[in-house]
This record gives sequence, C-alpha cells and structure tokens, in this order.
Amino acid sequence: MAAKTADATWRERAQRVVPGGMYGHLSTRLLPDSYPQFFERSSGTRIWDVNGNEYVDYMCAFGPNLFGYGDAEIDDAYIAQLGIADTMTGPSPVLVKLAEALVAHISHAEWALFCKNGTDATTAAVMAARAATGRSTILRARGSYHGTSPWCTPLQAGTTKEDRSHQIYFDFNDIASLAAAAAEAGPDLAGIIATPLNQHAFLTQQLPTAEYAKAARKICDERDAYLITDEVRTGFRCSRDGLWDDLGAPPDFSAWGKVLANGHSLSVLLGSARARAGAEAIFVTGSFWFSAAPMAAALVVLRRIRETPYLETIERIGTQLRTGLGEVASRHGVGFEQSGPVTMPLWKFADDPDLRAGFFWCSEMLRRGIYTHPWHNMFINTAMSEQTVAATIVAADGAFGALTASRSQLGPNLKLSALLSRA
Amino acid sequence: MAAKTADATWRERAQRVVPGGMYGHLSTRLLPDSYPQFFERSSGTRIWDVNGNEYVDYMCAFGPNLFGYGDAEIDDAYIAQLGIADTMTGPSPVLVKLAEALVAHISHAEWALFCKNGTDATTAAVMAARAATGRSTILRARGSYHGTSPWCTPLQAGTTKEDRSHQIYFDFNDIASLAAAAAEAGPDLAGIIATPLNQHAFLTQQLPTAEYAKAARKICDERDAYLITDEVRTGFRCSRDGLWDDLGAPPDFSAWGKVLANGHSLSVLLGSARARAGAEAIFVTGSFWFSAAPMAAALVVLRRIRETPYLETIERIGTQLRTGLGEVASRHGVGFEQSGPVTMPLWKFADDPDLRAGFFWCSEMLRRGIYTHPWHNMFINTAMSEQTVAATIVAADGAFGALTASRSQLGPNLKLSALLSRA
Repeated sequence: MAAKTADATWRERAQRVVPGGMYGHLSTRLLPDSYPQFFERSSGTRIWDVNGNEYVDYMCAFGPNLFGYGDAEIDDAYIAQLGIADTMTGPSPVLVKLAEALVAHISHAEWALFCKNGTDATTAAVMAARAATGRSTILRARGSYHGTSPWCTPLQAGTTKEDRSHQIYFDFNDIASLAAAAAEAGPDLAGIIATPLNQHAFLTQQLPTAEYAKAARKICDERDAYLITDEVRTGFRCSRDGLWDDLGAPPDFSAWGKVLANGHSLSVLLGSARARAGAEAIFVTGSFWFSAAPMAAALVVLRRIRETPYLETIERIGTQLRTGLGEVASRHGVGFEQSGPVTMPLWKFADDPDLRAGFFWCSEMLRRGIYTHPWHNMFINTAMSEQTVAATIVAADGAFGALTASRSQLGPNLKLSALLSRA
Repeated sequence: MAAKTADATWRERAQRVVPGGMYGHLSTRLLPDSYPQFFERSSGTRIWDVNGNEYVDYMCAFGPNLFGYGDAEIDDAYIAQLGIADTMTGPSPVLVKLAEALVAHISHAEWALFCKNGTDATTAAVMAARAATGRSTILRARGSYHGTSPWCTPLQAGTTKEDRSHQIYFDFNDIASLAAAAAEAGPDLAGIIATPLNQHAFLTQQLPTAEYAKAARKICDERDAYLITDEVRTGFRCSRDGLWDDLGAPPDFSAWGKVLANGHSLSVLLGSARARAGAEAIFVTGSFWFSAAPMAAALVVLRRIRETPYLETIERIGTQLRTGLGEVASRHGVGFEQSGPVTMPLWKFADDPDLRAGFFWCSEMLRRGIYTHPWHNMFINTAMSEQTVAATIVAADGAFGALTASRSQLGPNLKLSALLSRA
C-alpha cells in the first residue's frame, strides 16, 4: 500500500472540520483528481503543494497575484503600516491618500468606498443605484459572476426567489437583448451591472464591443439610471484604467478587488460625481473595511500601475504564451482554443463537451510542474518571464502528446457531469 | 484665525474623495463635534489622532482589539506566515489547524467556514438554515445588528422590501414574543437568529435569561429549525465558549469575527454536526477568505484564550472601572447608568433623551485623554491595567464636575435629533 501523501492527510483532517472538506472557489471538487487541495508556500509566480511539488501557478490565487506572490516592496509597506496602525477606532490618513490616488488614476472615479470582498463592492453598487433612483430593477448579464451574496450567488441553495427580485437578465454583448431588458424594466430601471468582459467559467471568453458598452451607457443616461461595471476580476489586468472608460462608456460605479493590494484583503467601490449621492445614502460597513495596512500595500500597487510597464510586461508574456501554445497545439493537430485577453486566458479543447480532454491535459501539465485550470480563466503576473513561457511550452508539448496518445481511451468526466447537467 | 488642525485638513481632503467624508461605523457624523475623525497610530490600549493627541481607547476599534493594538506575538505570527504564504490558489494547512482549534474549543462547533466580514458569517448562517430546511422564514430580534447586507442593514436606503421578506421580528429576552413569532412562521420556520446578549446602540444593554435562550433552542428542536447566534461583537469578550453554550442553549450556527485575529481581517461561521449539511449546500466564497496570515494570527489568539487568564483580567478591569465610575458619579450626584457585561459596558445619563449630557461628558472625557462613546457599547482589552482605570476615574471626576456645572445650559443635541426622530 502506498504511503498516504501529506495532501491526503490534510484532506482527511479538513473533511472532519470544514464543510465539504473545503468550500468556495478554492475547493478542488471540480478539478482533476490529481490536483492538490493544500499549499504550503508561494513565491513569485510559484506555489508549492503540501507534498513538496513546485508549480508555475497560472491561477494567481484566482486573480490577486499581479506582481508576484510575496512581493517584497508591497509586503514591506504592509508590515511597516501594521507597525504603526491597522484596524483602529477611526480610519488612518492612508485611507484618504489611497482614495485620492484612485480618483486621480481611474477616469470615471470621483470617490472611493473601501471594503473587503468583491461582493461587498458589487452589492453596495446595486444598493447605491437603488438609493439614488428610488427604483428597484437591475439589469444583469446572464451567467456573469458578481459574488456570493444571496442576490447574486451562482447556486440557488439557501436563497429565496425574493433575493433575486427586481433583476432582469440580458445577454452579454447583445445590444438588442439589453434594450429588451431595459424596456421590460420600464420606469423602475435603477441600473445595469456587467463585467467589462465576458469571463464566464466553462465558456469561451468574449471581449465587449464598444457599441455594446456605449449602448449600456446610453440607456442609463436616457433613463437616469446607473451603470455599474464589475472590475473585480479584470481590474488592472487589461488596462490601467476602467475597461469601459477605454471604450468610451465610463460607468457610474465600478467594483474592484483582488489585485488591489496584490493579495492583501481589500476591495473598493469607485464612483462618478453623479453616483456620490447614492453611495452617501446607504449604510454599509465592516469590522475591517478601514484597516490601514492593506491600504498602504495598495498605494505601492497603484504607483506600480501608474509608473511601471507592468501592463506591457504581462501583455508581452501573455502573447508569447498564446503564440507558443497555439504553435505546439497545431503541431500536434489538437484543436486547442485560447480565448479572452492574453493576460486572462481561458483554454478549451475542441469537441470536448464534458471536458474530459481538458481534465486529462491539465493533469499532464500539473505532472510537469504547471498549474492550469480546465474551465476557469487564468492570469498572467509580472513575476513570469520568457523562461516561464518556455517551460510552459515544453510541458504543453509533452501534455499534448500524451493527450493525443490517450484521447480515444478517455472515459466520461463524472466529476463535472452532475454540475453541467444541472446548468 | 486659528490654524487649521491636521484633522480638519484630512476631513476636507476626505470630503472630496470619500462618500459623506467618511462612511459606516467609523464616521464621526453622530459623535460630539470635538471628536477627531482620523488617527495616526495605535499601541496597546492607546490611539493617537492626527493632531497628536493621545487617548485611552475604550472603543477598541469597535471590538477587534482584545489583546492590545499591535500585540507583538500576534503580529509576528501574521508577518511570519505572510513570508511563507497568504492568499494563494489553494488554502494552507493553517486553515485546517485553525478549524481544528476552534472545533476543539467551542462546545457546539463541529466545523468552521472562514470568511472576512461578520456580515459574511451571519448571511451564510441564514442561507445555510434555509438550505438545510428548504424553508424561508427567519425569526430575528427587533433592533439587533447583524451587519449591512441588504437583508439586515439597519438603514432601509438602497434595499427593497423583498430583501427583508421571510423575516419575523421578536423582542429580545421575551419568550412570549418569540413564541408568537414562531407561531406566525408556521411550517416555514427555517431558523432563529439572535445576538447572545442585547447590545443595541442607544439602549440599555440587557443580558439574556437562560430561560429565553433555552426557549429559542426548544423551538428549533421541536420545529426542526436552526438556532443561530451572532457572536461577532460578544465573542470571547464574556466567555471562553459560546455565550448560549454557557446558558445550556447551544446554537446550530454561530457567527464570529472582530477579535478572532485581534484586528487582522478574519471572521468565521461555526456550526454543529446537524448544521453541516446546510453549510455544504450553499455556495459562498471570497477572494481573501482563505488567506493564511490572519489565520496564523488567530491561532495565537485562540491559544491565549485557552491558556491565559485574559478573561479574568478584562473582567477584573471592567469591574474596577464600573465600581470606580459608579462611586465618582454618585459623589457628583449624577444619574449615570452602566449596563451590559463589565467587559462591554454602555454608559448613559438619566433624564438625557437626546444624549446632550452624554455628548458633553464624552467631550470632557476626550479633552482629558479618554476616548469613550456616547451611545455604543465599549470594550475592555487586556492591555488595560489598574493604572488605566485610575486615570479614567480621575478624568471622569473632572468630566462629571464640568457636566454638573454646565448641564442646565446645554442646548439640544441637533446631531442626533434627526436620527432619533426617524427611529
């Protein structure tokens, strides 16, 4: 009998004291069996599982890692502020400095309201739009993820139908669908919430057209409603500004999180001058929303975003990766689809409805030291280099070869079938 | 013309880039005019405002500060873990160790689900109770604070009436009121949520009777519903265990936060064996819910709670303070009411409906270097000592004297009148 791995031991312990053994987006329940659940250490673009295996991590903690895990300058700023003040009876001036830096940097932003979760920011935006208009109906893109509050969590368990009242769905990038939803809302339209690009799990990623973004802006202008973009995942990964600012459709509210302090707990709702009254009318707060240490870290992040070619770096790395993977997949004759911005890629195989090929290929990549995801978009960070890309291409070459040799023998993907059949 | 203070300058800057100049529970909008908005530094039981004034801080960051600001051992554990791993693509074993420590320590706890805000934990508890029962109705105590999600935020702005559907209110500590609410819920009763003790802002604090707590437990047992206690504010401040465990009414779910990592961002939903299925059914998560550094800090906090006389310390300090303040108030012939546990006191003046005396007295205390709150409960921490109490009594002596001299001339409290007239 093989010795039990450390990961298996930790899973057993977790099974006893954590719901389902692990919960939320970090559960491996819907990942290949070979994927480890527990990690011991991280540095730069690498993670080490509890079995001692080292990986290049294309998940970047599902987004927060933009400048590399454990970036010294960012963490030093955190630690220095922690030694002065963090969670107090009142805010520190660091909060004002960070709000000023965000307002100076993001085109549509005139104010900032800090919180902890991305969900805190999206929920506050919906509340503020309702408070500002005195109306209730929110239009949202079908399938878009905005967090796990009862109004938005992607599973229905534990929610009531009233939690989703006053919501009308439209199809991302579909102006006619958006217009129909707005017409259905009638005089009760409070706002429109959308991710700036389509980043649905399991699906081909889709960039917005400027026409679509502007149509959303125009509806809000004409109806005196509020436009909300959910930048929690996209923020600073594809632009130094708001993505819809770039498209000529500046939102009234935008929700940000994840990369904001490079992994330290911080999110923020930004808003335009016209959106301020709504934000001032609602009561939202949290025990740690004013903590100064993550804000000190975010000031460093924001300076890097302003002053360094970080964006050009991740775009160059992402482009090299996309090109290299395309070439090697083509050489193997494998239908390999790469969608989304190069800095936030999602990879799928052609003719792979239950992702059995994707699961097999990811497992082969994992064996070769590359942590990729079979159905969620990934992320590029600035700690990656041409060497990272080269190592990934070598691993992909091997993994494509293994897939080609085994594909006809692959059995159905039982892990995903239950979920996909429900969707 | 007097030179502008640093606090005034920061307020002006904040007014431009923060909704309302400041938001949430740390806004000074409903505090005396002399109260500073911004703080530069904290250490032990003290805070320093941006004008350079030093205060003994009885607010303890509204709860998180239990072992003193900047506790070296706790913060060192945080920093050490930050150097290894914090927010990653998967959880660290630290999560399992902390879940095990909580399960071993809290009587009713069989599992732990970590999150960031107290609101995250209370909201997940309500969702899990609904998921477990397939029913919707939640009973809640009138006026109790459970966070700022649309289902519970104390102001209505930005919420819809559907956000509060399936909720029935009862009066805290009133068994007949609770029974009536349960009867009204009928077969749709999913659960009961309550703070373990009555800690409403503005009101005299009230300890629960064991009969009341047991009545809530009995209703849930008889109706196959779930009992939820919101320990976010009370946790570890009045007991080493759950407060209703002590009363013989162990809950199915309990929500904790604030002190859990002594100011680092962490909250947790704990639950009984029977509550596990509900927690496993719902989908809740957050970008930073699995971050390891706050959990490493919480392991130190929990060891202190188990192994040191911290509770006896804060109870001794709290008792000395209550006795000393009572004596000096009585000497001044002032009706001064101290309610709540000695470790979580709330102070009010007799015949002071608009709190004009409370505001004046708190301002006088502030001038004397003691930061107290005129309408919210305060907290005792272990960094306080007999010297802290003695200094507070000296300040109170002066402040009571000033109040007695000025009370007949005090004008109405305009700051609070608008709020209180709405309530």
